[in-house]
Amino acid sequence: MIPKINLENKLKELDKPWSPIEIARVNEYVIRMALFEGEYHWHKHTNEDELFYVYRGSIVIQLRDQPDIILHEGEMAVVPKGIEHCPRALESSYVLMFEPAVLKSKGD
Amino acid sequence: MIPKINLENKLKELDKPWSPIEIARVNEYVIRMALFEGEYHWHKHTNEDELFYVYRGSIVIQLRDQPDIILHEGEMAVVPKGIEHCPRALESSYVLMFEPAVLKSKGD
Repeated sequence: MIPKINLENKLKELDKPWSPIEIARVNEYVIRMALFEGEYHWHKHTNEDELFYVYRGSIVIQLRDQPDIILHEGEMAVVPKGIEHCPRALESSYVLMFEPAVLKSKGD
Repeated sequence: MIPKINLENKLKELDKPWSPIEIARVNEYVIRMALFEGEYHWHKHTNEDELFYVYRGSIVIQLRDQPDIILHEGEMAVVPKGIEHCPRALESSYVLMFEPAVLKSKGD
């Protein structure tokens, strides 16, 4: 039987910031959800783009040498491979990330 | 400059049912959004899983020989490769699909 995934229920599993849980696998990709609070750290993914989708809240993805991306609920952006970035929560936020399963969401 | 994508704005580009528009690319994957109205047709993707995420509305993904999946707003499910399925809208619905860019959303 194919399970369905309810994002509202998944929120309840998240209590620690910056600790993504796996939501679903699609081929060799994974959708993760994380609670964003405060600031993460500067990092990049050498070979892989990363998608951020704000399910609840507001975040800013800080970038080097180009404008920050401010994302509110219902907004998404793709950080291309090789671009150094540092996510920061503007409030407690729940964010979906779509990325290859080989990434551990740690960055380089 | 990295563009941000606002799903609420994307809805306005969709007027024809079952005609997905591209929302974002992540490596060799694509996120598409489509308006679901009425019923699609039975099909399968031989080599690729497909994710459905209901952004607005309610749909049912009919399956052969196993229970249908009913998805309301904020719910998602992954139809594994090789599984014949037929999406049907329970009301006018906006659905995100995540799948390899090589798929044209046509199925076999």
